Amino acid sequence: MHNHIYFTTKDHSLHLLDQRLLPTREEFFVCRTSEEIITALQVMVVRGAPAIGVTAAWGCIIALHEVMQQPQWAVLLHEKLDRLAHARPTAVNLRWAVEHLRGLWAGRGDIPPAELLPLWEYEAAAMQADDIKACQTMGQYGAACIQDGDTVMTHCNAGALATAGYGTALGVIRAAWEAGKKIKVIANETRPFLQGARLTAYELAQDGIPVSVACDNACALLMQRGMVQCVVVGADRIAANGDSANKIGTYGVALLAHEHHIPFYIAAPLSTIDLTIMSGAGIPIEERPAQEVSHIGGTQITPDNVPVFNFAFDVTPARLIAGIITEEGVLRPPYTESIAAAFERQAKK
Amino acid sequence: MHNHIYFTTKDHSLHLLDQRLLPTREEFFVCRTSEEIITALQVMVVRGAPAIGVTAAWGCIIALHEVMQQPQWAVLLHEKLDRLAHARPTAVNLRWAVEHLRGLWAGRGDIPPAELLPLWEYEAAAMQADDIKACQTMGQYGAACIQDGDTVMTHCNAGALATAGYGTALGVIRAAWEAGKKIKVIANETRPFLQGARLTAYELAQDGIPVSVACDNACALLMQRGMVQCVVVGADRIAANGDSANKIGTYGVALLAHEHHIPFYIAAPLSTIDLTIMSGAGIPIEERPAQEVSHIGGTQITPDNVPVFNFAFDVTPARLIAGIITEEGVLRPPYTESIAAAFERQAKK
Repeated sequence: MHNHIYFTTKDHSLHLLDQRLLPTREEFFVCRTSEEIITALQVMVVRGAPAIGVTAAWGCIIALHEVMQQPQWAVLLHEKLDRLAHARPTAVNLRWAVEHLRGLWAGRGDIPPAELLPLWEYEAAAMQADDIKACQTMGQYGAACIQDGDTVMTHCNAGALATAGYGTALGVIRAAWEAGKKIKVIANETRPFLQGARLTAYELAQDGIPVSVACDNACALLMQRGMVQCVVVGADRIAANGDSANKIGTYGVALLAHEHHIPFYIAAPLSTIDLTIMSGAGIPIEERPAQEVSHIGGTQITPDNVPVFNFAFDVTPARLIAGIITEEGVLRPPYTESIAAAFERQAKK
Repeated sequence: MHNHIYFTTKDHSLHLLDQRLLPTREEFFVCRTSEEIITALQVMVVRGAPAIGVTAAWGCIIALHEVMQQPQWAVLLHEKLDRLAHARPTAVNLRWAVEHLRGLWAGRGDIPPAELLPLWEYEAAAMQADDIKACQTMGQYGAACIQDGDTVMTHCNAGALATAGYGTALGVIRAAWEAGKKIKVIANETRPFLQGARLTAYELAQDGIPVSVACDNACALLMQRGMVQCVVVGADRIAANGDSANKIGTYGVALLAHEHHIPFYIAAPLSTIDLTIMSGAGIPIEERPAQEVSHIGGTQITPDNVPVFNFAFDVTPARLIAGIITEEGVLRPPYTESIAAAFERQAKK
């Protein structure tokens, strides 16, 4: 995978591979304003919790660049950061990235904007690099959960396209493959946005990792027939007790895996864990436009005037999760303790 | 719902509402040859086990009309009936309808084709009328399974369009509605062919029954949130022990319903029960063309050269089924006994 998110310091623009057009077209969407960043996030030019975080970090820099010539720049910037942080509700990485840069700013007292700009640029580049490194470390830990010969099911896209690169769930799959394990992948197509069919299949095929696409409806049959040995997915927000929000349908896949005695893993960096939320009940679930369900490409698939549901995420209870694969190792139940311990290890570094 | 299957005796043609074009276009597909009937079945101009049976019955008549002038007509007709009976593998109603007409013919010794024709036409019309009557009776029995105020989830289309009229699962829903129960329906969109989004929503909206469409992926979330009180689906073939083949994804819905303590019902006429098959393991599962998964309308959703799975059905084990709603009443576990008893009651009539 080439770099799908890159920032140009020359004109302060962020280039995003437009994920709405994959797999049939590879085009970049260029953001020159912080409002264009918000649009890109909301219409899902880019999606995936860690990629949303990195995009938002560059969005803060574009916002700073927009206001830095004005006397009221600090007030205006706070407003723009607030708007960015609320572009989408579920992925905690979005808020995390914005607040991380805001905290850095606060720590420098009355730093002039011309000095804040290079500081933030350095930090955003570091966040992007750190995200890739975290994915690779996660991959190393997670690869041990996958056996030679396994067929691994994944839901949605928790790959290079959902992160700064390499991927969380797909990072685990890549690491297992790179370690010489002969594995196959089943990508659930993941309606309504079809991230599995369009993005996961695209990424893995590019890397030469054997991948097939199945309708979400085929999941139970494939498990019943013994065609799946392991499930690995990403997450958009994890509560302190391990309950994990991820793409709609994940909770169903986890229940079906549990019923068929197939281990179900979450792969996510610690930045996806929200220690301020005790359980999944506290995670806000985004509802998205009906059009994503009622139309596919140019084809209308529901009758006029029939309402549709379009919840973007669901929450998988911790009891269905065999392990949470992080850059601090594979966390095991009880998660309240193993998550707290992972944050302690990270803080000591 | 208007009649979506009608035969014209004048020119021996069968008119089928083309279900591939719904909900945005209402056009009839006209079959003048038995090969056109086979095509219509295979490309799913018409689908749904009872509708497939009725279509095949009219197909037998068209086949007879094609060969009746030839000296070898009986040999040729047997060949055509064999081809018709194997147009699709899973729905037992197809074979049942063809063998029912063949049995009637065998019972008349060396009846000349000109006499067989009106006999079969009378019988096919009776089968079509009986199917509607069976659906209405099923509806009466099944309506008692639905409480006032319930939201009923259904998967695929087991409606008027899947039968000669009124529907099996949707017949139960219609009967509950007609009895004055204030119910709502959630139609799972049912990838890959989208029968739920396209057909179930269309039918129920036409009848003024409140219906919403959800992606198949939303099923677990909707149940988790208490938004579903009852599931009713159709069946394509039921084994003697109650294991039921139905549209891909049904088994997953049944497992999720079981996990959330939501009663899961099958609605199907006795002609869908195959007493020659002891359990679901014996039911053949059709695999259909990849194009149904890889493309939606004109939009390609998977990358070139990535294989896809397209199993058309799965089997729900009897243990997950709260009741099988038939024209002989609501059968309850243990099904081997209740199914056998239902056939005995029917035979005594």
